[in-house]
Amino acid sequence: MVTSDGPAPARRGVRAKDTREALLDTAERLFAERGVGEVSARQISEAAGQANNFAVGYHFGSKAGLVRAIVRRYTYDMERRRLRLLAEIGESEELRDWISCLVRPATDHLEALGVPSVRAQCIAQINTVPAMRQIVIDESVATPSMQASLAGMFRLLPGLSEETRRDRSDMSLLLLVHALAERERALNEGAPLSRATWDDAATSLIDALTGLWTAPATRHR
Amino acid sequence: MVTSDGPAPARRGVRAKDTREALLDTAERLFAERGVGEVSARQISEAAGQANNFAVGYHFGSKAGLVRAIVRRYTYDMERRRLRLLAEIGESEELRDWISCLVRPATDHLEALGVPSVRAQCIAQINTVPAMRQIVIDESVATPSMQASLAGMFRLLPGLSEETRRDRSDMSLLLLVHALAERERALNEGAPLSRATWDDAATSLIDALTGLWTAPATRHR
Repeated sequence: MVTSDGPAPARRGVRAKDTREALLDTAERLFAERGVGEVSARQISEAAGQANNFAVGYHFGSKAGLVRAIVRRYTYDMERRRLRLLAEIGESEELRDWISCLVRPATDHLEALGVPSVRAQCIAQINTVPAMRQIVIDESVATPSMQASLAGMFRLLPGLSEETRRDRSDMSLLLLVHALAERERALNEGAPLSRATWDDAATSLIDALTGLWTAPATRHR
Repeated sequence: MVTSDGPAPARRGVRAKDTREALLDTAERLFAERGVGEVSARQISEAAGQANNFAVGYHFGSKAGLVRAIVRRYTYDMERRRLRLLAEIGESEELRDWISCLVRPATDHLEALGVPSVRAQCIAQINTVPAMRQIVIDESVATPSMQASLAGMFRLLPGLSEETRRDRSDMSLLLLVHALAERERALNEGAPLSRATWDDAATSLIDALTGLWTAPATRHR
């Protein structure tokens, strides 16, 4: 009998997928709450109700593999949103349009997730661990839509040195990642918000980043 | 005999002060590494080599009291540095001068601490806990020198709505706190830096914040 031999392959496939999702949801929550470095693969497996403490290793190979899978869960949606925005703005000469392509896919994605959510807080935690941040960059900054957005932005900022570009890219990522995490946390807690809607929050971040990128750069000695 | 009665008051005073400092150093390190929420007063007492698990309670009353004491350890030095800068710029009409008063006291303080240091990383962690962030704001933003710096800055930005001021103040704090924490971490790890010196890092942050504050604000619906 099939039952005595365990579930048929199809069922097993479904179960494996459920387990994967359960592990990803649990890891996102624990990383957001405690930080990536403070949570072990074993703790994630246990918190996800897995009898097998090596479930994370089995499904993702390593913690880095798990982080990559967490990032990939949202990059597809963000990429889709960004490609749509890029199609809308075409060859725009407005810097704001290109900066919107950096900000709105993230704010629209978070708005769609609803409340409560831990995604932005999890990404903020991942970003504080240099080795893990590289995974975020590989997976969500080195994408076609992101490269097109940055190229369009830099085309309108011809005066900036390579060093200033790198420096302001780091600052933009820091501001964006932590501003979105703060807003997500405030929404979860029902705390007061400086901007009522995700759309207003995005507009305000786009204003600020447009200023940050167009600011004259002091020559360093 | 005094010895049989325990140490004389003077010695006891010295010991209490040493214990306090040891607890503050340990708490700063643990908060920086693990986050404020993840470290208990008991763990701090133990890690500081205190036989008495209630040492934190005895010396600081509560975790909030401990955080306040951590913040007060550096606000005095930052205040001193900021008042000196304010005296130098007088009634300057240059926005950069006022923004320098927000940035340089922190970068100069961190440079003076040397490497390794966990101070900026500890403050970044404290800032992610809303209740604790309020302590930082009460202790280090609500100071005379900080209020004078902000007043000088706002005097040169007459067009901004109260909402935009609040919003950009939040963004400035986020960018500053996390950029300094990232730089401190990179220095501790000997990782590559986008700016070679604290002075260059400060200049670059001042450029960026000047742009952020002078950016036109889109009217929100």
